[in-house]
Amino acid sequence: MRRARRGQRQGPPRGFMTPRGFDPIAGAPPSRTEDLRHMREALAVAPRGQGRVSPNPLVGAVVARGKQVFGTGWHAEYGGDHAEVMALREAGPRAKGATLYVTLEPCRHHGHTPPCTTAIIRSGVRRVVIACRDPNPEARHGAEELRQAGLDVEIGIEENAAKRLNAAFLWFHRRWVPFASLKLALSLDAKLGEESVRTPVTGIRALDEVHRLRSCHDAILIGSNTIEIDDPLLTARGEVVPRVPPIRAILDTTLRLRISSQLVRTASQAPVWAFADPESDGFEERAGALLDAGVEVIEVARSEDHRLDLSAVWNEMAIRGVLSVLVEGGGQVAASLLRGGHIQRIHAFIAPMFYGRDGVPAFPGLEPSTPGDWLPVQRESLGQDTQIVFEHRELQETLDNL
Amino acid sequence: MRRARRGQRQGPPRGFMTPRGFDPIAGAPPSRTEDLRHMREALAVAPRGQGRVSPNPLVGAVVARGKQVFGTGWHAEYGGDHAEVMALREAGPRAKGATLYVTLEPCRHHGHTPPCTTAIIRSGVRRVVIACRDPNPEARHGAEELRQAGLDVEIGIEENAAKRLNAAFLWFHRRWVPFASLKLALSLDAKLGEESVRTPVTGIRALDEVHRLRSCHDAILIGSNTIEIDDPLLTARGEVVPRVPPIRAILDTTLRLRISSQLVRTASQAPVWAFADPESDGFEERAGALLDAGVEVIEVARSEDHRLDLSAVWNEMAIRGVLSVLVEGGGQVAASLLRGGHIQRIHAFIAPMFYGRDGVPAFPGLEPSTPGDWLPVQRESLGQDTQIVFEHRELQETLDNL
Repeated sequence: MRRARRGQRQGPPRGFMTPRGFDPIAGAPPSRTEDLRHMREALAVAPRGQGRVSPNPLVGAVVARGKQVFGTGWHAEYGGDHAEVMALREAGPRAKGATLYVTLEPCRHHGHTPPCTTAIIRSGVRRVVIACRDPNPEARHGAEELRQAGLDVEIGIEENAAKRLNAAFLWFHRRWVPFASLKLALSLDAKLGEESVRTPVTGIRALDEVHRLRSCHDAILIGSNTIEIDDPLLTARGEVVPRVPPIRAILDTTLRLRISSQLVRTASQAPVWAFADPESDGFEERAGALLDAGVEVIEVARSEDHRLDLSAVWNEMAIRGVLSVLVEGGGQVAASLLRGGHIQRIHAFIAPMFYGRDGVPAFPGLEPSTPGDWLPVQRESLGQDTQIVFEHRELQETLDNL
Repeated sequence: MRRARRGQRQGPPRGFMTPRGFDPIAGAPPSRTEDLRHMREALAVAPRGQGRVSPNPLVGAVVARGKQVFGTGWHAEYGGDHAEVMALREAGPRAKGATLYVTLEPCRHHGHTPPCTTAIIRSGVRRVVIACRDPNPEARHGAEELRQAGLDVEIGIEENAAKRLNAAFLWFHRRWVPFASLKLALSLDAKLGEESVRTPVTGIRALDEVHRLRSCHDAILIGSNTIEIDDPLLTARGEVVPRVPPIRAILDTTLRLRISSQLVRTASQAPVWAFADPESDGFEERAGALLDAGVEVIEVARSEDHRLDLSAVWNEMAIRGVLSVLVEGGGQVAASLLRGGHIQRIHAFIAPMFYGRDGVPAFPGLEPSTPGDWLPVQRESLGQDTQIVFEHRELQETLDNL
């Protein structure tokens, strides 16, 4: 594993006692500028755990004194060291009297690893700067424990960036439904491609980004129409190899999923879940065959529009531990989920072309959105394509009110 | 007028003779890096003439020796000094032996001002670096004249940027039809707004950009449907006040333009042209009334699709000296012009919202584009909106083959 090594590794000599309130190196309390710089470094290393730590959050940590950085760490693997522990280990005895910067409130519970609060108190750091609180009831209130142990604790530096980094985790622990990202590859006239033909709208760099997105969601959701047309694999085949392969979930009302499809044929490599209405004709027989082929069939009733009840689907996913889902299509699925308010983030990949009148509309039958519902938070060029990321007002409000 | 004053204003003492091939200050021929830096400065000042110089091109110039800049100039006003003359005047005697950087080949003809080539030769500059050739047959071959006078002339530094800066001018002088930019304010589902209601899709910063675009096009084109729904003014009301107000041109097949419309009521302030089919019922009477109100009615026959022949409209504009036209809608007009291959550049302003199933589609009945036809050349955030600028392959090819 590559470690970020920043700054000089000099610190006070071993055993050097630092009286509270006086810093022999910095000579003064760390400035706001230094706090910001170290917290941003902690935020910058946190995403290295992407795809490897879910259901845990992404966390980064830095141990520093004045401008000097003694240790940098991130939560790299579910079940492995937390960011704080990794950074403190690198800092060693130089942590004594230094400041620990951490992007999420340190945990105070025994999970796979001992509580981070204990390690922090033992390390001798004098001050802990936390970007945002941990809403997970099992882990929270680490800040209070640190304060009781006599450490200076400051919360809220780069809070928004830290919340956006773990938006899925924070949303799930506040709402108890999966955080859903909608991926859209659109032509400039908002078409998905040509009718009944598998057409790649966007280029290779957008595809790389889709594989990255897949690797950091617990599940990938798609409609059965798209399965029939595209017969996709839906696995994450990018640079980041996810710790567990994302679940491939299908909205398959009448259970049309074929045994011969790529999805079913690879069911042993990555889980396949089919959400279907058990009242459909021939359900029992088809469900049995799919079960034999390794597919999990999850029964969900239909709602008034004769489609699967999407809130029920979301609940079934939450129950099974899916914190985040990447919705990949098609148009009916996207429109239904947007209509139902199930989407928190949209990744729109806009390709430089028109499909024209015969193209498949990206959002059939969609209701108009209220102005201000969606906020663009990121724009980038991906070769010829342009990615715009939108977040829903409700997500922003949920993060603001944590 | 603000002048860019860069670098130190020291030069060789007056009357100091510079033997060819030896530069007493730089000590060596200017490096590629310096050439690039000075040409980029010339490219950076050229757009200051936006809205003020058409039908002339935008031109910037820098007089420099080594790293020292002695003069910076740009063509600021139609009929006024050319960029080269402005930069040389600022440089004064320090121009002797220096290098002149200019974004477009200097003219060699008498227009409103004497030929730039004469001024350049008289100034004593030793070397002229030109970004791109001037395709205008009246002005071209300035480079050859300079070479004949014994100057070193280099052509092609930052050529692409210089060509894109004057894409409209270069297109017109190569094709003899107006250069057309299509402005689109789109929701994420590619709708223009709600049916029959004037709805501002995009925000205030996108509107500023639209006014800037209006100010640097000779004409603004719109369909009669949009006139009926929006009753717009279509004037350029941004920071840049255009030298002459852009012509407000309407595709008005059956001449429905009302005398009471804002356009007609302001016809004395900015020209209004109505393109209409003289075979329409009641044409003579309505044309007479509009003519009395100060509107120019231009007769154009219909093509096979019962709409106005757009190639004929384009020709009529070219004949009347319109080099560039900004197409502002609506959907039928945009789709027809795209279908006919009349658009060279698209300014898509994408707003963070959905209009849904009842929204007006931006491109009704459009044919699919061939992949590679459109190339994104610019992306920027404008408040909540995102602008993506696309250029057509044919424009790129025309500029490449100048």
